[in-house]
Amino acid sequence: MNNQGRTAGLPTLEDVARQAGVSTATVSRCLNNPAQVTEATRARVMEAVEKLRYTPNFGARALAARRTNTYGAVIPTMENAIFARGVQAFQDALASIDSTLLVASSNYEASVEESQIRNLVARGADGLLLIGADRDPAIYDFLAERGIPVVLAWAIGNQPGVSFVGFDNEAASRKLAEKALKLGHRRIAYISAQSIHNDRARARVEGVRAAMKAAGLDPQSLRLVETHYSIKRGKAAFHTLMEGEDRPTLVMCGNDVLAVGAVMAAREMGIDVPGDVSVTGFDDIEIATVVSPPITTVHVPHRKMGNLAAQALLRQTLEGKPPETICLETEIAERASLGPVG
Amino acid sequence: MNNQGRTAGLPTLEDVARQAGVSTATVSRCLNNPAQVTEATRARVMEAVEKLRYTPNFGARALAARRTNTYGAVIPTMENAIFARGVQAFQDALASIDSTLLVASSNYEASVEESQIRNLVARGADGLLLIGADRDPAIYDFLAERGIPVVLAWAIGNQPGVSFVGFDNEAASRKLAEKALKLGHRRIAYISAQSIHNDRARARVEGVRAAMKAAGLDPQSLRLVETHYSIKRGKAAFHTLMEGEDRPTLVMCGNDVLAVGAVMAAREMGIDVPGDVSVTGFDDIEIATVVSPPITTVHVPHRKMGNLAAQALLRQTLEGKPPETICLETEIAERASLGPVG
Repeated sequence: MNNQGRTAGLPTLEDVARQAGVSTATVSRCLNNPAQVTEATRARVMEAVEKLRYTPNFGARALAARRTNTYGAVIPTMENAIFARGVQAFQDALASIDSTLLVASSNYEASVEESQIRNLVARGADGLLLIGADRDPAIYDFLAERGIPVVLAWAIGNQPGVSFVGFDNEAASRKLAEKALKLGHRRIAYISAQSIHNDRARARVEGVRAAMKAAGLDPQSLRLVETHYSIKRGKAAFHTLMEGEDRPTLVMCGNDVLAVGAVMAAREMGIDVPGDVSVTGFDDIEIATVVSPPITTVHVPHRKMGNLAAQALLRQTLEGKPPETICLETEIAERASLGPVG
Repeated sequence: MNNQGRTAGLPTLEDVARQAGVSTATVSRCLNNPAQVTEATRARVMEAVEKLRYTPNFGARALAARRTNTYGAVIPTMENAIFARGVQAFQDALASIDSTLLVASSNYEASVEESQIRNLVARGADGLLLIGADRDPAIYDFLAERGIPVVLAWAIGNQPGVSFVGFDNEAASRKLAEKALKLGHRRIAYISAQSIHNDRARARVEGVRAAMKAAGLDPQSLRLVETHYSIKRGKAAFHTLMEGEDRPTLVMCGNDVLAVGAVMAAREMGIDVPGDVSVTGFDDIEIATVVSPPITTVHVPHRKMGNLAAQALLRQTLEGKPPETICLETEIAERASLGPVG
């Protein structure tokens, strides 16, 4: 994947592996954790490194002269503004030191994200912003081998070697659910994003289940619908939930875009929000205030998060500081879509 | 700007200039328009090129082997979804051939856009998507010198050497204005994006003026407010327009985001839309259907435009086809925010 090698005809990790007759993983272990390989293997690999005059990228990277002042971000989607504001703040912070941000969007697909990460590294990105922590460990190894500083935003996790600038999705979602339970809601449904490869989505659902359990309800009684993020999907999911008996009195949504769809579907169906059914969102993006009634949601400090994520990444990249974790406070934005049980 | 050179330790244009004791501009003139430099200068530069074994990037570019399968896009903003849908479609088309799209956003600033364009080229972009045609000619020279295929979208223009995949902003805006004039509107105001470096914004205003003229009105009687694209700015601009005597009966907006702001401001002010004042937008992004009343706007076929822009760029990049111009049809999306004069 070392494009700098490819484009300039320099030897790559792959070339060294071929020459030494070992796997690329073995070559990088020799270079990064020699203790993990036998002396014989190390000797063979180092001979190949010598012979091919191979310079590992992370070595070059240490030289400021080799810096590109370009940073990369891979976000799940550019459609709907979920990530737009935070990424814009991230970019503004980089622009203030004349660095450029290049953004790729993975469409919530793990394999696409992986190739975009490799591509951004191949293009010489000095550091990366990624969303959440839920990805193949091999990707973190790949980035660590190349010494690429990484900041993960929108979540807090325990991935070693990377910075986290995010918030506690579960606690935030739990707080909102507790508020709804206090208003008497018992029949609760949840419209979630696809939870696979999405730690934020899973944590938000868990927060609601935790609140239900604490209130003496069966967490498994939560009616869960998973769908893609879009107003249209939110509408469809709300229709599904309202079909048949035993309608929920509260429809919580994993994201404001889904909540907007739910509120619009309710209007189409002649269901009063919050009179008949309450709806909540998550994120507090602008669209939550545009729909009527405006949506009660979890306010995520997107601009602050984007700015602090940039600062953390720059401290790692330019000052060689160790990774850090910054957990931001969220709050409930109280609007009209959540009310007491009718 | 030759990053392949920099990161791989190959000689750069700067190295050649230093060696020859001339400016980098002179070096690239020697390489691209030798006629513009004296024979003596050319000889000195070429000697340096020989000595350093310098290979200009645009030369390397001709070799398919040097392709990165990475394309770049520079859009004015990632906030609000104006460009999101079209860029997503553009990316989807590239993804279908396993190419990656890297996106930079310029915040509507010409100097930022220029450095992002140079950066994407330095990162090895095989081709670029840019919005509109309104930029420093030197940028087109820079791209032409390096043989980087370019497609300009969201507008149609006559810049030689690049493809256009867009629509006629003036005609689309004129058609909507004609519709409003037929409904009896005479006191018309327009909330526009900043028109500097924004050919789309200027064309949309011109379309309204043309319709006014054709209807026997003084085009200069159009009350024009220029502001940045945001719901907040749209609200503020609407407030300004409603202050004092002689309120307009129609407020046309250069973009749906501004129109949403105008409709929300009207609600706050107790002004009925369209009973007291009609509001129109432009783009037909999702938010136009979320606000109440939903906004009558110009429907731009964003997905189709993004997809066709990718096809045109790939034809140039992979098949060496000449640039082409594709002008898409727009239509009026009739909703509730435009009505007859009360």
